[in-house]
Amino acid sequence: MAQLRSLSRERCLELLASVPVGRVVFTQRALPAIRPVNHLLDDGTIVIRTNLGAALGSTATANGPVVVAYEADTIDVGAHAGWTVVVTGTARLILDEERVARYERLLQPWVDDTMNCVVGIDCDLVTGYELVPVPS
Amino acid sequence: MAQLRSLSRERCLELLASVPVGRVVFTQRALPAIRPVNHLLDDGTIVIRTNLGAALGSTATANGPVVVAYEADTIDVGAHAGWTVVVTGTARLILDEERVARYERLLQPWVDDTMNCVVGIDCDLVTGYELVPVPS
Repeated sequence: MAQLRSLSRERCLELLASVPVGRVVFTQRALPAIRPVNHLLDDGTIVIRTNLGAALGSTATANGPVVVAYEADTIDVGAHAGWTVVVTGTARLILDEERVARYERLLQPWVDDTMNCVVGIDCDLVTGYELVPVPS
Repeated sequence: MAQLRSLSRERCLELLASVPVGRVVFTQRALPAIRPVNHLLDDGTIVIRTNLGAALGSTATANGPVVVAYEADTIDVGAHAGWTVVVTGTARLILDEERVARYERLLQPWVDDTMNCVVGIDCDLVTGYELVPVPS
């Protein structure tokens, strides 16, 4: 059995920056949707790359900024220990050519697919918990 | 670099059943929300336990069944290999006393909190991908 301990915003962002992969959560055709992606944190913004045909890209293009959630965790299933961080914030297509070029250099997609769209997610609301084992 | 290969429904459910933890994705106060939980698969239904005060529980109670997504993955960040499965389906409070008792026995919450609500998620729509490294 474990206890959940709330983490500070600062610690949440440190943990998020410590892992390369998270999951972007959005709404697609009025249904909840989720997709694992790799990310980087730049000055408090989560940056991901996606293909323009992907749901998040086309939603952001068609309707302007959208609110998404972004989750990352590290869970040791044996020890029942770990952490989870959830960010809720506005996702925006990054259009500035210099920033796009920089992020395309820094953030290499893992998947062999055309990722022609760079998205920044503001860390508006940040929550996180540590799962701490307690003696039974 | 890796390629995404689509997985069959059967393989997706096998992979989902092979791990104890996933992430339930739902809508909370009109915002996308996500929470890691442990699960079991029973006859094609994902079963999770939650506290009645938790968002999913209260949504399901107040408004009847809701559509959620459920995601699990195993990603080797070094090898850029792994898999991800996403189920979209109706989440329902399980009220039948015998089933509740059985699931409470089989599915022990990891967190020291009152989990007085058992939720079943139908596997209506199942998609999954394998991330297969390809020689660069």
